[in-house]
Amino acid sequence: MPITVVGLDGDDTLWHNETRFNITQGKFRELLNRHVPDADIDKHLFQTEMRNLGIYGYGIKSFTLSMIETAIQLTEARIPATDLDVILGWGRQMLMQPTELLEGVEPALHELTQRYDLLLITKGDLFDQESKLSRSGLADLFLGVEIVSEKNVNSYKGILKRRAIKTDDFVMVGNSLRSDILPVLELGARAVHIPYHVTWHHEQVPEESLPRSGWYRLEKIAELSPLLASL
Amino acid sequence: MPITVVGLDGDDTLWHNETRFNITQGKFRELLNRHVPDADIDKHLFQTEMRNLGIYGYGIKSFTLSMIETAIQLTEARIPATDLDVILGWGRQMLMQPTELLEGVEPALHELTQRYDLLLITKGDLFDQESKLSRSGLADLFLGVEIVSEKNVNSYKGILKRRAIKTDDFVMVGNSLRSDILPVLELGARAVHIPYHVTWHHEQVPEESLPRSGWYRLEKIAELSPLLASL
Repeated sequence: MPITVVGLDGDDTLWHNETRFNITQGKFRELLNRHVPDADIDKHLFQTEMRNLGIYGYGIKSFTLSMIETAIQLTEARIPATDLDVILGWGRQMLMQPTELLEGVEPALHELTQRYDLLLITKGDLFDQESKLSRSGLADLFLGVEIVSEKNVNSYKGILKRRAIKTDDFVMVGNSLRSDILPVLELGARAVHIPYHVTWHHEQVPEESLPRSGWYRLEKIAELSPLLASL
Repeated sequence: MPITVVGLDGDDTLWHNETRFNITQGKFRELLNRHVPDADIDKHLFQTEMRNLGIYGYGIKSFTLSMIETAIQLTEARIPATDLDVILGWGRQMLMQPTELLEGVEPALHELTQRYDLLLITKGDLFDQESKLSRSGLADLFLGVEIVSEKNVNSYKGILKRRAIKTDDFVMVGNSLRSDILPVLELGARAVHIPYHVTWHHEQVPEESLPRSGWYRLEKIAELSPLLASL
C-alpha cells in the first residue's frame, strides 16, 4: 500500500545530537576525574539520569541538572562552585549550538516533500526542539511538527488520530529502535530504521525484540525516497 | 456570536503555580542572605532568568538552573556545593508536588465540558505541564491539549488553524494579560481574564495597552459559564 505521510525523527536522524552529549560527557568525566580519580563517572551519571527521568524528562536542561547532581554526590560536596559554574556553561553552550544537519538530509527532504506529507515527530524538551528546528532551516518542509515527551504506542496513536492518518498510509523514519520503530510497528504502521553511529544506552533494545517484517533498515537518508517509492 | 470552543490556561488559572515559585524563591533568598546579606537577590535572579529565557524557555528546570547560576555569581563562587544541592532538591520537589486546583475549577469544568469543546492551552515545559495535567485528574474533560513554548499571536493562530476553529467561535480564558488575553484579541477572538492574586513580573502588562472591548474580567472561574452563555 502506498505511503502518504512520512514521520521523521529529529535527533540523530536529521541533525546530530548524541555526539554532542558525548562530547560534553567527556569533558565532565575529565573535570570530575581531577576530584575523584577512582569513580565510575559515566555509570553514576547514567544512574542519576535514569532516576531523574520521571521528574525531569529528556533534554539538555535535564542533563545539565543531572551532571551537577552527580558532581556534588561523587565529590561528597567537595567540588568548588566554580567547577559547577563550568558545567552550567556547557549546558548553555549545548543549547545555543547551531543545528548541524546529517549528510544528505537537505536534498532528501526536498525530494520527499514533493510526494509526501512530512511530519517531524521528535521527543524531548519542547523549547529546545523548536529552537533546533527553527535554526535547521528545514521548518518549511514539514506539514506539521509534533514534539512529545515520550515516544510510545499511545503518543503515536494520538498523533495519527488527531491528524486523521490511517496506519496503512504512515511510515516512521528514525534512528532509535526503541522510540521510532518498535511502538510504530506495534500500532500496525511501517517504519524505517536509519542507525546513527552512537546510540544512548537508554535507547538501546535487543534486535530480537523486533518483529521480522513491517520495517526496513537503510544506511543513509538518501536511500529513503527510492525505498518509499517501492512500497 | 455563540462560542463553541473554550481555551483554558493551566498555570494560575486551573492550578496554583506562581505561589509555588514564590515560596521557593523565599527560601532561596533566605539561603543566599546568609552568604551575601546586602545583595538584591530577587533582582539578580530575575535578571538571570530573563537572560536565560531565550536559551532555557519557561519552567521549573529553567528556574532551578537560574537559581544555581545566581547563587554562584552573587557569592563569587564561595557558596558550598551542599547549598547548591539544596537548591537542586527544591527544583525536584516543585516538579513532584501534587497539582493543587484553584477553588471551583472542578465543578466549573464539568459544567463547561457539557456545552463546549475545551482545550487546555498552556505554555512552558512540555514534560512538567503534561505531568501536572495527568496528576490534576482533569485530563478527560479536555478535547485537546496544546503545550506551547510561548503564547503569542502566531502560536494561537497555529492552534486555531490546525484544529479548524474560527476566531469567532473561540474564547481564551486565563490569568495573564500578556499571554492569555492580548495575543488572542490581536487575532480577533475573544478572551476572559481571571486574575490570580500574584503575577510574575515578566507577565505584567499595563492595562492601558489592552483594547477596550472583546474581553471580559471575572473574579472566579465559577462565573465563566454564565458569562459564556450570555455571549
